[in-house]
Amino acid sequence: MECVVPSEKTTNAGLPLRPIEPDFVPTLRGVLEKRALAERIAGDAIGQGVTDIVFVGCGGSYSSSIHAATFLEARSTKLTIRNINAAEFQALPPARLGPKMLVVASSHSGGTPETVAAAKFARERGARLVAVSRDDDNPLVGASHYSLSYGSERTVTSAKQMLLAQLSHALLEETGERLDPATRAALEALPTALLEAQEQADPRLAEIARRLTAERPTYVVSSGPTMGAAFSLSLCYFMEMQWMNASNIDAGDYLHGPFEMLTENASLIVFQGEDATRPLTERVVKFAERHGTHVFVIDSRDLPLTGVPEHLRGDVSAVALGVLGTRLADHREAATGHSLDERRYMHKVEY
Amino acid sequence: MECVVPSEKTTNAGLPLRPIEPDFVPTLRGVLEKRALAERIAGDAIGQGVTDIVFVGCGGSYSSSIHAATFLEARSTKLTIRNINAAEFQALPPARLGPKMLVVASSHSGGTPETVAAAKFARERGARLVAVSRDDDNPLVGASHYSLSYGSERTVTSAKQMLLAQLSHALLEETGERLDPATRAALEALPTALLEAQEQADPRLAEIARRLTAERPTYVVSSGPTMGAAFSLSLCYFMEMQWMNASNIDAGDYLHGPFEMLTENASLIVFQGEDATRPLTERVVKFAERHGTHVFVIDSRDLPLTGVPEHLRGDVSAVALGVLGTRLADHREAATGHSLDERRYMHKVEY
Repeated sequence: MECVVPSEKTTNAGLPLRPIEPDFVPTLRGVLEKRALAERIAGDAIGQGVTDIVFVGCGGSYSSSIHAATFLEARSTKLTIRNINAAEFQALPPARLGPKMLVVASSHSGGTPETVAAAKFARERGARLVAVSRDDDNPLVGASHYSLSYGSERTVTSAKQMLLAQLSHALLEETGERLDPATRAALEALPTALLEAQEQADPRLAEIARRLTAERPTYVVSSGPTMGAAFSLSLCYFMEMQWMNASNIDAGDYLHGPFEMLTENASLIVFQGEDATRPLTERVVKFAERHGTHVFVIDSRDLPLTGVPEHLRGDVSAVALGVLGTRLADHREAATGHSLDERRYMHKVEY
Repeated sequence: MECVVPSEKTTNAGLPLRPIEPDFVPTLRGVLEKRALAERIAGDAIGQGVTDIVFVGCGGSYSSSIHAATFLEARSTKLTIRNINAAEFQALPPARLGPKMLVVASSHSGGTPETVAAAKFARERGARLVAVSRDDDNPLVGASHYSLSYGSERTVTSAKQMLLAQLSHALLEETGERLDPATRAALEALPTALLEAQEQADPRLAEIARRLTAERPTYVVSSGPTMGAAFSLSLCYFMEMQWMNASNIDAGDYLHGPFEMLTENASLIVFQGEDATRPLTERVVKFAERHGTHVFVIDSRDLPLTGVPEHLRGDVSAVALGVLGTRLADHREAATGHSLDERRYMHKVEY
């Protein structure tokens, strides 16, 4: 049934497009300098007999660990890997929680109550704790053995992902897994490659932002390591910061039910990465482009990713697509005039 | 912005409410008779050195394993547990895939191409395979070492969940974990307790079905083992079978962004179970009842669950809520006149 709506009030009162964060490249370069710390954390952990790696966080901080968790699980024969919402983790912890577990807890402010509580709880049970947050002095850091910080107020998700990628690489090396020799080069190319990606994608993202509407729910489909970008775009940027109905669906599930809602009354965004799960999103895109109306494909193949070795593009495409998701939110703010900082409830009412 | 819509065409042309499936109790009783087979599978697997349990499936078959995976992860110190979409599993398999992995593959028909392919792929890599499907003669069974079947066309999710619960119990016993002595009694109470639950909940579910609308997206929030019920209600019953915009969100993430869309333009269903994650949904309910308009709480505490020992209600509440989700779909069909069997694309076009 077509939903008849008044024309969107905000379209004629947009906001200026935010500039790409001036601290973007310096922040990510700073993250690369945490390599030695990541190696020390991994060395200590494996030396102390750690066998289980659990990432915890809430909302966007949960989603920012999906890339690392997926990367590790596909490569580590010796470690078990999980990514769990922090409140879920504390309420129903894995039975393996104990001294053999390294818990990597993420919270931008370092003050997210559930994540701080989960860190304290895990530490009491003997786990090793790593805080991933903005700075080195906050409650989460206080509850942890190590602090991996990125020092930026706005370059957050990509910074966390690169910190966790670095930690993942160190854990793999420490446990004797084969790591492609160019892995480090791919990571070091990212600060400028991701800046370039945003500049190049800006016109396309502006167009997508204009063609989305608050009246149509927006489904964000992706796969594998890029599910983090799909989660944060739908739940954080669209629902929280743009008051749009939205959700994320794994490409492997999309054609088993949800595709029935591919109609003129909903928008579909597909994040298409270059890792081994790409065939899943390709199949969705093929179907959606044949039958859908408001279908928007954001494909990392369109990005040069200068400096990233061709055979390792799949290792970093999820980070690149995450950055484009963040940038799409900027464009949506510009198109609608709805500030990304406006909230109904968050930090305004008790919950 | 209020979405002005014509009155729903289908509300005045409902369908008769389907009866509760006549095969409901016999099917679940039949499942209980698979106990010896579950014990044999577990005994063989652990005897052969299995350390990793991976559940695979697509869509509703993926979600029907969430209960067992959550149950096992919280109790097993010796096994690693994962639940992965079958296409994701084959595209980017866990590095641990090999002879020490037991892959439990679910597909109602036993013919889901991605799940059959994942089973064959895992078996080639040395894994032990268990098929969970309707019958004992289908492609998935052909690719597997064992077949756990439930023999019903319509009593599906609860049957799968009970088969997997039984297998989980056997795996825990086989690996020497403590299992509450009343665990079996709780399972044996379910066939009649779940029938009773549906009969008792029918009036309330009918009311919820009438108050949902296709114009408002419906968010289904839950936690822990009950996320399976939230997944299947939103993606299978609402999106696929009722053409409603819907999604599922973990209660631990809900207050970190998505709650900003708790408005008069969306519906919220909270599945509230009695496992250790209940505080997460209680917090959401408290917030939503204060600020929301179309908020519907489905709480297993309202069910007698006759015969289930009080202290084990949390082990089975997710199964009970899953059954109520299925029954809610029946009521929604009755209220809208939109047959649960109608499809736009599934099995009608190429994809």
